[in-house]
Amino acid sequence: MKLQMMYSFMKADIDLIEKELHKAITSDSDLIQKASLNLIEAGGKRLRPIFVLLSAKFGKYDIQAIKNVAVALELIHMASLVHDDVIDDAELRRGKLTVKAKWDNRIAMYTGDYILACSLEYMTKIENVEAHRILANTITEVCLGEIEQIKDKYRFNQNLRDYLRRIKRKTALLIAASCQLGAIVSGASEDIHKKLYQFGYYVGMSYQITDDILDFTGTEKVLGKPAGDDLLQGNITLPVLYAMNNMNARTKILTVHENLNKEEMKEIISVIKETGAIEKAHKISQRYLQKALSVIKDLPENRTKKSLIDIANFVGKRKF
Amino acid sequence: MKLQMMYSFMKADIDLIEKELHKAITSDSDLIQKASLNLIEAGGKRLRPIFVLLSAKFGKYDIQAIKNVAVALELIHMASLVHDDVIDDAELRRGKLTVKAKWDNRIAMYTGDYILACSLEYMTKIENVEAHRILANTITEVCLGEIEQIKDKYRFNQNLRDYLRRIKRKTALLIAASCQLGAIVSGASEDIHKKLYQFGYYVGMSYQITDDILDFTGTEKVLGKPAGDDLLQGNITLPVLYAMNNMNARTKILTVHENLNKEEMKEIISVIKETGAIEKAHKISQRYLQKALSVIKDLPENRTKKSLIDIANFVGKRKF
Repeated sequence: MKLQMMYSFMKADIDLIEKELHKAITSDSDLIQKASLNLIEAGGKRLRPIFVLLSAKFGKYDIQAIKNVAVALELIHMASLVHDDVIDDAELRRGKLTVKAKWDNRIAMYTGDYILACSLEYMTKIENVEAHRILANTITEVCLGEIEQIKDKYRFNQNLRDYLRRIKRKTALLIAASCQLGAIVSGASEDIHKKLYQFGYYVGMSYQITDDILDFTGTEKVLGKPAGDDLLQGNITLPVLYAMNNMNARTKILTVHENLNKEEMKEIISVIKETGAIEKAHKISQRYLQKALSVIKDLPENRTKKSLIDIANFVGKRKF
Repeated sequence: MKLQMMYSFMKADIDLIEKELHKAITSDSDLIQKASLNLIEAGGKRLRPIFVLLSAKFGKYDIQAIKNVAVALELIHMASLVHDDVIDDAELRRGKLTVKAKWDNRIAMYTGDYILACSLEYMTKIENVEAHRILANTITEVCLGEIEQIKDKYRFNQNLRDYLRRIKRKTALLIAASCQLGAIVSGASEDIHKKLYQFGYYVGMSYQITDDILDFTGTEKVLGKPAGDDLLQGNITLPVLYAMNNMNARTKILTVHENLNKEEMKEIISVIKETGAIEKAHKISQRYLQKALSVIKDLPENRTKKSLIDIANFVGKRKF
C-alpha cells in the first residue's frame, strides 16, 4: 500500500498544510524565497504534519488550530535538514541539489535560520503554553543531537547508547512531539497524548534505524545519494556498530576516511553486510516498531488508529 | 561617564541577568557548553537586557517576569553573532577568538542554533502572546537582514535605502523590540511602549552607523579586529556609500577584494577619510540620536528616563 493511501481520508487537510508551507516561507527577498522553495518543492513524506493531524483526531479536531502546529513542526524539520546538509557537505537530498550545493554554505545557514524563524511565527499562533514549552524543548534537543553527531563523527569507539541517544534527539523526539502536540492542541486527554508521544518516539527510533540500514542496502537511484554516504561522512550508525564486533570487519571499517572512492566503499559495504549486521539492526528497528504498536493498542478503534498502525508498519518496513 | 555608571541603580538586576545567561546555556554536552560560554564570557555591553530592564521601569517592574525577556533577547543577539562570524569568516570578536576560529564553522552553526533554541525556552516562560509575536517577528527580520547582507556583499551599486533597510533589520529592530517588550511585559500603557519602541529603533540605527564609522576610525586594539575589516568582507557601509560619490575614491573602492593586504587597506581607509564621508555618516548617526531623544521627551521625568538619555548619548558618541 502506498503511504498516501493510508491517510487518504485527510487529503484535503494535507493539501491545506502544503499550501500553508508555501505561504509560511513567502518573503520579499528573492534569494531566500528561492532557497526555501527549493526545499519545500523537493518534497518529502510530510510525516510530521500527518502525525499531527492524525493525533488531533483523538480530540476536538479543528484544522484551523491544528494546521499551525503541523506547519511549525514541518518547518523545524526542514530547517534542520538545511543545516544538516552543510554539516554533511551533502550535494544531493531526495535526488535534488541541496541549498548548500545550489548556493553555498552561508546561504544555507541563513536559509535554515529563516525557516526556523518562520516556524516560530507559526508557533505564536498556537494559544497553548504547554505546546510552546514542548516545541522549544524539542528544538533544543534536536540541536544537541546535531552537535553530538558532529562530535561523534569518525569516533569509532562509541557504543550503542551513544548511537541511540543521538537518533533519539535527532529524529525520534520531533516525531514524538508531532504526535503529542496534535493531541494536546485538540484537547485530547493526558492519557492519550502521553501514549501518542511514546508511539511517536518508538516510530521515530524505528524510522531512523531503517534509514541508517538503507544507507547500506539502498541503491543510489532510490536513495537520491550514493550508498554508504553516511559512513563516508563519518556517521557511525547501528549497522556499523554491529559490524565492528567482527574483528575482520572492524579492521576494514577503521580505514574509512572521507576520500574513499566508490569501489572502496562498495567493498566496505559488502564486508559489513557479510557480518549479519544489517539483520541485527533490522531486528532492533522491528523491536521499536512493536513497542510503538503495543503502546497504542488501548486507544479507541477507529479509522485514525488504523492509519497510525499502517504508517508505523510502513515506516518500519520501507525499502526506500 | 562610563556606561555602567548610567544604570548603576540596577546593578543587582543586571548581575542577576548575567547569572541567568550562564544558566540558560548550561548543557550536558561539554563541547556546546564550552562554545556557548566562550561567547558569554567574551563580554559585551548587554545593551539589550539593559534596555529591557529600563523600559520595564515604566510599568509594574517585576524582575522575575522581566528577566525572561531580557535573557531571551540577549541570547537571540548572541546567536546571530555566532552565525555572523561564520559569514564574515571572522577570527576575532571583542579581541577574542570566535567560536568558528576556536572550533570550526560547523560547530559555530550549531552553537548558534543551540543558543537560539535556549532563547526559545526562555520565551516560553513569558506569558504574553503579544510578546511572543513580537519576538518571533523580530527573529525573522534579523534573519532577513543577515541574508540581505550576504546578497549585498561587494555589490557596489547599492544605495542608501539598501543600507538603511539592512541595518534596520540587522540591528535596530532588536533594540526596538528590547525597549518595547520591557514596557509590554511590565504592563506599561500602549502609548509608552510605542514610544519606547521608536526610541529603541532610532538608538539602534545610530548605534549601527557609529559602529560602521568605527570600522574606519578605530584602531585594531580598541576594535578587537583589524580596521577596515567590514569593507574587506565586502560590507558596504554608510561611510563607503558617501565616499563613492567622489570619483577618485570610487575608483579606489571598486578595486577592493578580500585578499587586500593591510597596507593597501590603510590607503583605502585614508582615501575614504579624505572625502569627508566619515563626517557625513556621523551627521546621519546624530540625526537618529536626536530623533531618539525627541521621541521620549514626553515620558515622565525620572531616574530611568535619565538613564535612557545617557545611554543613547553614549551609544551615539562612543569612540570605541
